[in-house]
Amino acid sequence: MAKKQLRIGMVGYGFMGRTHSNAFLQAPKFFDLPYEPALSAVCARNKGRVEAFAANWGYGAVETDWRALVERDDIDLIDIAAPNDMHHDIAIAAAEAGKMVMCEKPLGRTAEESAGMVAAVEKAGVPNMVWYNYRRIPAVSLAKALIDDGQLGRIFHYRAKFLQDWTISADLPQGGEGLWRLDVDVAGSGVTGDLLAHCIDTAMWLNGGIEKVSAMTETFIKEREHTLTGKTQPVGIDDACAFLARFDNGSLATFESTRYARGHKALYTLEINGEHASIFWDLHDLHRLDYFDHRDEGTTRGWRSIHVTDGDHPYMGNWWVPGLAIGYDESFVHQAADFIRGLDGDAAAPTFADAHRTDKVTDAVLKSARTGQWEAAS
Amino acid sequence: MAKKQLRIGMVGYGFMGRTHSNAFLQAPKFFDLPYEPALSAVCARNKGRVEAFAANWGYGAVETDWRALVERDDIDLIDIAAPNDMHHDIAIAAAEAGKMVMCEKPLGRTAEESAGMVAAVEKAGVPNMVWYNYRRIPAVSLAKALIDDGQLGRIFHYRAKFLQDWTISADLPQGGEGLWRLDVDVAGSGVTGDLLAHCIDTAMWLNGGIEKVSAMTETFIKEREHTLTGKTQPVGIDDACAFLARFDNGSLATFESTRYARGHKALYTLEINGEHASIFWDLHDLHRLDYFDHRDEGTTRGWRSIHVTDGDHPYMGNWWVPGLAIGYDESFVHQAADFIRGLDGDAAAPTFADAHRTDKVTDAVLKSARTGQWEAAS
Amino acid sequence: MAKKQLRIGMVGYGFMGRTHSNAFLQAPKFFDLPYEPALSAVCARNKGRVEAFAANWGYGAVETDWRALVERDDIDLIDIAAPNDMHHDIAIAAAEAGKMVMCEKPLGRTAEESAGMVAAVEKAGVPNMVWYNYRRIPAVSLAKALIDDGQLGRIFHYRAKFLQDWTISADLPQGGEGLWRLDVDVAGSGVTGDLLAHCIDTAMWLNGGIEKVSAMTETFIKEREHTLTGKTQPVGIDDACAFLARFDNGSLATFESTRYARGHKALYTLEINGEHASIFWDLHDLHRLDYFDHRDEGTTRGWRSIHVTDGDHPYMGNWWVPGLAIGYDESFVHQAADFIRGLDGDAAAPTFADAHRTDKVTDAVLKSARTGQWEAAS
Amino acid sequence: MAKKQLRIGMVGYGFMGRTHSNAFLQAPKFFDLPYEPALSAVCARNKGRVEAFAANWGYGAVETDWRALVERDDIDLIDIAAPNDMHHDIAIAAAEAGKMVMCEKPLGRTAEESAGMVAAVEKAGVPNMVWYNYRRIPAVSLAKALIDDGQLGRIFHYRAKFLQDWTISADLPQGGEGLWRLDVDVAGSGVTGDLLAHCIDTAMWLNGGIEKVSAMTETFIKEREHTLTGKTQPVGIDDACAFLARFDNGSLATFESTRYARGHKALYTLEINGEHASIFWDLHDLHRLDYFDHRDEGTTRGWRSIHVTDGDHPYMGNWWVPGLAIGYDESFVHQAADFIRGLDGDAAAPTFADAHRTDKVTDAVLKSARTGQWEAAS
Repeated sequence: MAKKQLRIGMVGYGFMGRTHSNAFLQAPKFFDLPYEPALSAVCARNKGRVEAFAANWGYGAVETDWRALVERDDIDLIDIAAPNDMHHDIAIAAAEAGKMVMCEKPLGRTAEESAGMVAAVEKAGVPNMVWYNYRRIPAVSLAKALIDDGQLGRIFHYRAKFLQDWTISADLPQGGEGLWRLDVDVAGSGVTGDLLAHCIDTAMWLNGGIEKVSAMTETFIKEREHTLTGKTQPVGIDDACAFLARFDNGSLATFESTRYARGHKALYTLEINGEHASIFWDLHDLHRLDYFDHRDEGTTRGWRSIHVTDGDHPYMGNWWVPGLAIGYDESFVHQAADFIRGLDGDAAAPTFADAHRTDKVTDAVLKSARTGQWEAAS
Repeated sequence: MAKKQLRIGMVGYGFMGRTHSNAFLQAPKFFDLPYEPALSAVCARNKGRVEAFAANWGYGAVETDWRALVERDDIDLIDIAAPNDMHHDIAIAAAEAGKMVMCEKPLGRTAEESAGMVAAVEKAGVPNMVWYNYRRIPAVSLAKALIDDGQLGRIFHYRAKFLQDWTISADLPQGGEGLWRLDVDVAGSGVTGDLLAHCIDTAMWLNGGIEKVSAMTETFIKEREHTLTGKTQPVGIDDACAFLARFDNGSLATFESTRYARGHKALYTLEINGEHASIFWDLHDLHRLDYFDHRDEGTTRGWRSIHVTDGDHPYMGNWWVPGLAIGYDESFVHQAADFIRGLDGDAAAPTFADAHRTDKVTDAVLKSARTGQWEAAS
Repeated sequence: MAKKQLRIGMVGYGFMGRTHSNAFLQAPKFFDLPYEPALSAVCARNKGRVEAFAANWGYGAVETDWRALVERDDIDLIDIAAPNDMHHDIAIAAAEAGKMVMCEKPLGRTAEESAGMVAAVEKAGVPNMVWYNYRRIPAVSLAKALIDDGQLGRIFHYRAKFLQDWTISADLPQGGEGLWRLDVDVAGSGVTGDLLAHCIDTAMWLNGGIEKVSAMTETFIKEREHTLTGKTQPVGIDDACAFLARFDNGSLATFESTRYARGHKALYTLEINGEHASIFWDLHDLHRLDYFDHRDEGTTRGWRSIHVTDGDHPYMGNWWVPGLAIGYDESFVHQAADFIRGLDGDAAAPTFADAHRTDKVTDAVLKSARTGQWEAAS
Repeated sequence: MAKKQLRIGMVGYGFMGRTHSNAFLQAPKFFDLPYEPALSAVCARNKGRVEAFAANWGYGAVETDWRALVERDDIDLIDIAAPNDMHHDIAIAAAEAGKMVMCEKPLGRTAEESAGMVAAVEKAGVPNMVWYNYRRIPAVSLAKALIDDGQLGRIFHYRAKFLQDWTISADLPQGGEGLWRLDVDVAGSGVTGDLLAHCIDTAMWLNGGIEKVSAMTETFIKEREHTLTGKTQPVGIDDACAFLARFDNGSLATFESTRYARGHKALYTLEINGEHASIFWDLHDLHRLDYFDHRDEGTTRGWRSIHVTDGDHPYMGNWWVPGLAIGYDESFVHQAADFIRGLDGDAAAPTFADAHRTDKVTDAVLKSARTGQWEAAS
């Protein structure tokens, strides 16, 4: 007997449109799901390109106006993989149309935007989720399990960085295909909303709420050509941001992100130091978790490099055999699977409400960078 | 206009049945192919399980007798993902039926077996390939490109290892689900055919033919229960094998494989030392290639850890963005894509004839271990 | 013909008394020096122990009152390896007695203290130096050479950490043998003066002056037994400190130190990201410098791990052969050698005046942690 | 009361003359020894240079004929740091003169040579030792302690490599200052006696006797100018050597050494795989020991990188504080200290008899390379 379908309407066909589409195709092949995801329709403004995308991925229909997509009655779930400035209106319309909503991060360009989105999904009572995919890298999920199990004890320190180097050239324009992340109107902010939002989501998941922050930001290249106007215009985003933080549990934290760190492509790292044990993780070697346990016998104590590819590691029993790593995109497969499994049980996180709390922190970070003061983050 | 289909008949639903099925599904999503692979039928002896497998992966039909699969006229390609003792008969029957043939490695349990298989595909004139997937890990493909470009200069040394630790327990039986690799009648040999065959395939691809070898093998656990008979029987496979080799180009090599190396799950490593430069690769961190170039300025010379995730790295322009790694299974996607792209042009390697040359080396290795002499390897 | 002697009077026989004594003995064996250092006298309060120390290291005389040492006319140089609270008075007395002065770091417990010390040595016109030894780890010296040569281009980011874990236990007392670093009256501060001072010294040497800082500190364990009183008393030092900084050259920085980072013994790390290249160094693998040069050809670009053991690397031509590492204590040998070589030429750094600038930064850091404001650092 | 002196007569002032001299100077400063080593006399043929060496290191006298040194009655110990072809005659003469004898490795150029040396020291009953210094790198000593404690269980595999790249240039002459290692008459052999001898010494210490070997050698550059004759002459040494081995305990081994491995300066690595645990060590990061313990809990199992710098690690309690590494030369300090401590108790190893067993293995390796057969190694 065929499973009931979960009919998906995708908005966007960029980088994230591809990762999400692949996730919905792979998830039922590797995980036992209560519903069968179906790529029902995809929407984007450029008709020729959205048709090509639909043909490649097997979407049954295309739309060029997201409002038409939201109104279709053969769609159960709207998945928003469009640029940040479109999240708010689409999500609210989808919720009001009774659709489940999944949304790329950050949820809003500001906490004010995302507050409205949370209200909409809660009012509509529809399942919702934000694609903070790094929680479901198996090594990160293992870190969560170790912390929840009390293996680290009292936490003293948290530190996270997300370092890139792709915008160092002054010749790079703002705006346009793949470059909307440099346009503050579309993106909302620079590295703070794009990269630190990931760090903050993981951090609050692993270590609880953030009380306050002290931040600095910098825009190293002050003007860039804008592809829409063809003119050189001021750059509104933050190229780099670093902040100090205090967590509710008393631990101290440093966070930093930049797109000006030569040699780092997408180096998201996190480290947690607890009373008994510490962990370290690194997106460039995402299949490993470094773990130090002070309770090991003294002369053989050392940082363990855990190759997180065993059958009893999170998610890994569903893939290959020990030693054979999975990649970045499988984290989206896990998230799609967890979302679908959560439809009949406990809703999977992070929900819109969770992601709104992250937006509050990024707002506080940007505010602190302006005021030069410590700012409350929740 | 829809592309012409390449209709696939798969034999086997184990670990490799899954990697191949996934490869045929993902390949057309990420690569531009002249034919659209279609999962037409799958065959295995257990009807209930093969039906479940077919349902999961979307195969259109099932068979329980591979001869019936081979005879179907709605199949273009037979893909053999069954245990080693079935490769020979299926491949020859498929070729004789005019089907293209893809086969898991090693091609034969002996070079004599694979000689017959090569003869069959060549007589039938059908496209053929063996799934030595590691060639198409992007970091390994990059190594090949550097060597072909002359970056290493004259080669002095080659060394490869494939270390595992999963058979150390004496309680592990031989034979049965997933354990046929311990049954010499099914597998043909132990680590030599299972793991060193991979090392040899890559080595001859990167460094040319092997002239001669001196080997030793060991079976640490002499008897294991056989799941078919329920009795404790002598173990016929080699648990470990190491050999010295001379390549045709004058370089010296060491090869080693074992399933008794505590701490290593699937540690395939290779290193090549040339006059100007050296490379090192490691399956446990498969997305990196270590590269040392003596022509770098002296005080800043050092081993470079190349994160092989850029758009201009082999295959990577078809996946995500720099810094975001792919995993083990994508190497099968690349191989499926290359095979299909090769149908209208130069046939992709390794062909049956290539894999037969590898079987000759493994035969020589096993012979040398018996005779205690250096043996010719080609 | 024998060289003229440089007669040394050492104050202190602890950890630093040993590193300095060893440095003066090894320096002339490995470096060509204009003067021959002579271990003339050593001073400490405990007569039995200072005699044993003198016998072990070959000091010609002992004193138990540093004032007596300073007044000896058979001494050219006073080397202060005593706890922080003694630096000020000894240094000033030594300068006033016309002695050269070397002093362990930090120079003063406060910038006010060190201002007086600078005034004294400058008034007396005596050679002076502070033992910020990490500058002379060959890998760090190489980093300096690369930066001075312009290899990094414009600097965007600096980050440094000094992580330890030795004070996590609440049973550790403050004060007493080897534990005066926990007693704020003796030490002046906790990790800020003890560890971050090292980071700041290196940072300003490599990257120029620091304009302003925003800091936070924490004392995780609020009370500890004091060994002098036997009573449980409030802990006055900072157990952890993190701060944001802006350098005069516009680069952004993060600094962090703690003694509560499980798994890290003395993990001093620094990273600098420039327009063209980046460097990373780590005290736990002190003989390596990681270097990324964006000007390398694209597909083989990667972080280089430079094994800083070649004859053309800083200081290394005076030791062994390529590949054979030296350790921590050789950095003191280099500093002793450079000081002595500087007596007949350009004075070696860091001088008291340099170290006073570091004290100004640590003062600003501690002030910012109290005020919650950004504070000027120079 | 002053300790009784151990009066040393050194032969040789090259690389090893320096490491030994430094060792005898540092040993009594860091270790409690029953005798005080005294640098009494040094001998080498070049009068001017040996006088400069003596002045630098503080030797009390010089000789230019080793026979004169051996005959001095103010010498207790002859330490042979001269090229290999001088070991035999000096050692025997020293023993016959009743002197203790320490000798650089390899003991003899052949096992036949070293057999005579063993006979001489045993007949004379004088303490004797060979400078296989790597046993006393603390990480290697820790490995020995773990193995002796049974932590690894039954050993399955041993593998060692010693890779260099300093003789790749064809312009390098054989013979002359520092290049006698390329002259087979002086050195006895190439990498086998120079580098593999180290690997074999450590291996037999850690894993017991070697039963048999199968080897290959290569001389990549067949002719080089000889500095003594000024003529281009055949090269008699082995540039590279690899061999398979069986240990008496049934474990399998691979050994390899070369001076043609680009990117490796002095990369001595060793790995041992046991039933319960494995270890790995690497001279380029000599202060670390990698350790994998299968008995760790499954999901957090991983290779531990032990930073061997704690007070309870071998020898490290006598140096600095945790986290601060020592270097290569300290292994000689440890060996000097152990030799002197052994004079009043159990003699420290490796003795001449131990080193003779190593010579038997290198002889068997070279023989196997000639015969193409497995050869008995003991």
